[in-house]
Amino acid sequence: MNDFNYYNPTRIEFGKGKEANIGKYIAEYGVSKVLIVYGSDRIKKSGLFYTVSQSLTENGINFEELGGVQSNPLLSKVYEGIEIAKSKGLEAVLAVGGGSVLDSSKAIAAGAKYDGDVWDFFLHKAEPQKALKIFDIMTLAATGSEMNNYAVVTNDQTKQKLSLAGPETFPTVSVINPELQATVSNDYLAYSASDIFAHSLDMYLSATYLPAYMAGYVENILKTVMRTTEILLADAGNYEARAEFAWAATQALNFTTFCGVAGNRFDTHFLEHTLSAEYNIAHGAGLSIIMPAWMKWQKNNLPERFEQFARNMFNVEGADAGIEALTQWYSKIGTPVTLKEGNIPESDIPMLVEKLSEVAGLWGATSLYTKEMIRTVLENAK
Amino acid sequence: MNDFNYYNPTRIEFGKGKEANIGKYIAEYGVSKVLIVYGSDRIKKSGLFYTVSQSLTENGINFEELGGVQSNPLLSKVYEGIEIAKSKGLEAVLAVGGGSVLDSSKAIAAGAKYDGDVWDFFLHKAEPQKALKIFDIMTLAATGSEMNNYAVVTNDQTKQKLSLAGPETFPTVSVINPELQATVSNDYLAYSASDIFAHSLDMYLSATYLPAYMAGYVENILKTVMRTTEILLADAGNYEARAEFAWAATQALNFTTFCGVAGNRFDTHFLEHTLSAEYNIAHGAGLSIIMPAWMKWQKNNLPERFEQFARNMFNVEGADAGIEALTQWYSKIGTPVTLKEGNIPESDIPMLVEKLSEVAGLWGATSLYTKEMIRTVLENAK
Repeated sequence: MNDFNYYNPTRIEFGKGKEANIGKYIAEYGVSKVLIVYGSDRIKKSGLFYTVSQSLTENGINFEELGGVQSNPLLSKVYEGIEIAKSKGLEAVLAVGGGSVLDSSKAIAAGAKYDGDVWDFFLHKAEPQKALKIFDIMTLAATGSEMNNYAVVTNDQTKQKLSLAGPETFPTVSVINPELQATVSNDYLAYSASDIFAHSLDMYLSATYLPAYMAGYVENILKTVMRTTEILLADAGNYEARAEFAWAATQALNFTTFCGVAGNRFDTHFLEHTLSAEYNIAHGAGLSIIMPAWMKWQKNNLPERFEQFARNMFNVEGADAGIEALTQWYSKIGTPVTLKEGNIPESDIPMLVEKLSEVAGLWGATSLYTKEMIRTVLENAK
Repeated sequence: MNDFNYYNPTRIEFGKGKEANIGKYIAEYGVSKVLIVYGSDRIKKSGLFYTVSQSLTENGINFEELGGVQSNPLLSKVYEGIEIAKSKGLEAVLAVGGGSVLDSSKAIAAGAKYDGDVWDFFLHKAEPQKALKIFDIMTLAATGSEMNNYAVVTNDQTKQKLSLAGPETFPTVSVINPELQATVSNDYLAYSASDIFAHSLDMYLSATYLPAYMAGYVENILKTVMRTTEILLADAGNYEARAEFAWAATQALNFTTFCGVAGNRFDTHFLEHTLSAEYNIAHGAGLSIIMPAWMKWQKNNLPERFEQFARNMFNVEGADAGIEALTQWYSKIGTPVTLKEGNIPESDIPMLVEKLSEVAGLWGATSLYTKEMIRTVLENAK
């Protein structure tokens, strides 16, 4: 195994009805003033907001609120939250929603402890050393944000979709109640499955060294996602499947999959972020378009790994058969596999190559993400 | 999945030569006076003690030392450590050794912050709310103590082998350098494999509800242990196998295997602790004696689980075939599978039944661990 360090201090509270304890959890950390961040008004109509606010009040915690976070969350909304947090002297952020709401909350938490522009962190002009405490109640399982310190936000002006991470941007407590995730549409369930796949496969299919232990660990996550997605598409109310899906999503991006691995990259995430920033498609939908296209480019770099993937995941022989099997599975669950299916004009490819090449510059990765590599993958996605 | 919470703040520093950074790691937490706890003088002869003490000195950290911790570590040694820590005003304990050294260190850390008798914690007369900071450098992979908050200690007087756990008895930083674990004898490697198996199988074969995700997760740990043990018995210097073995050991008892599981127990650990306390045999050796005997008792309680185990782990059909395959594997790697092989007189069974029944009282588990159950398992181990 490659040398590594691992540290993940997030406390998980997993199970039915746990959101009703959120006030108690937060009070344990001596916090008395929080900003509730959420997306649409659905959480008010469903009663979730009431449950949460009542629990806060019962535990002597005051709160402000910031709604309207959208998928592919915007920097402008983060600025709003920072302004509220600073002006009201808030001590913590409580995200109630999916990955976009939590990522916005992490950015608000970091920005509220910083005198400069929070976007500096995304551009690596500054490091987010401090942050307000972060709590969350997850209504969607996909991004794994509930157990890592990363936040991905889109700059409304520049359409750049970039990330920050700091030592204090881990959630302190994440509440995962699978029942709250049962109202997701089948479309979004499929996009979520695609997102989890990409978190796992970006590593599995790029690592120059992958310990056998870790291969088995990741394959178990992926098989869990496949099995439970198929159950849930037919039976959205299946609690056990919903719960296993949620926990697999968390494991796929809580850094456990990277322990001892060498040379892993995030190619499909790199390539996708610009698609979802540009066309506002769901991140998972963008990923299922990019993944097979990227695999066709990547397969010759690690031929044995691709054979292992084909055999262990789909019981087929050869890299091409594995790519085809995954593509068919994406189609079967209902997430797009071509630019066309994602309503992205193929004629935009030259523009996308330029944009992505610019982002590669920000990532300091132009030698890896050459224009030729980017163009090849996008052409593969036709 | 069953409701659960998960929290594990231990930072892992894994890899070659990391022990030379121990002073830096400790200094990051503002600690300047530590107690180095170790077992035999081997760590002085090997140069490890010098490496560690030099790193401490370079980082401005003063230290006292306490050697002589033995396997099945004794309460009397813990008292010694507490006395030193209290009288010298030490802020942290640094364990350099295996699970016994680390467990002693955890007990010292808890006892140093307590006015009463540290044994109170083991008898559940008091809760160890506070502890000195705990750091460790692991020279043996087996117990998983490096990433959990449990400590198992034997009372020299009463021969009781019991455990404590508190919110502050997680190691702050655990250093795992597989190279330092390469000098373990083949005997002890086999005992370690048996210990890891028991951590996993106590759960896997007793849980009344085991999510499919978790079954796959644990099977992957066990398969890793089997594969790497066989490699290491033939080639002790194989770094990759040593590293995967070490990481599997850590995963098997860092609480990840319990997430969402219901009704799991620790039967073989309950039964074994009295054996190793009474006869001072290696914990892992005691476990490989108890495990097949316990499985024969347990198999009818969860027949489908035992079939799953047989099929997924050994590719054989039926509970009995699975038990037989595991027993043969234990014999093959060289860890005992009967009382006789462990030099435990079969004529002691009545005495052991009485002793274990007493411990069951301390665990508040006499309805589960009846004299009949205990006798049946011990008779199965003949």
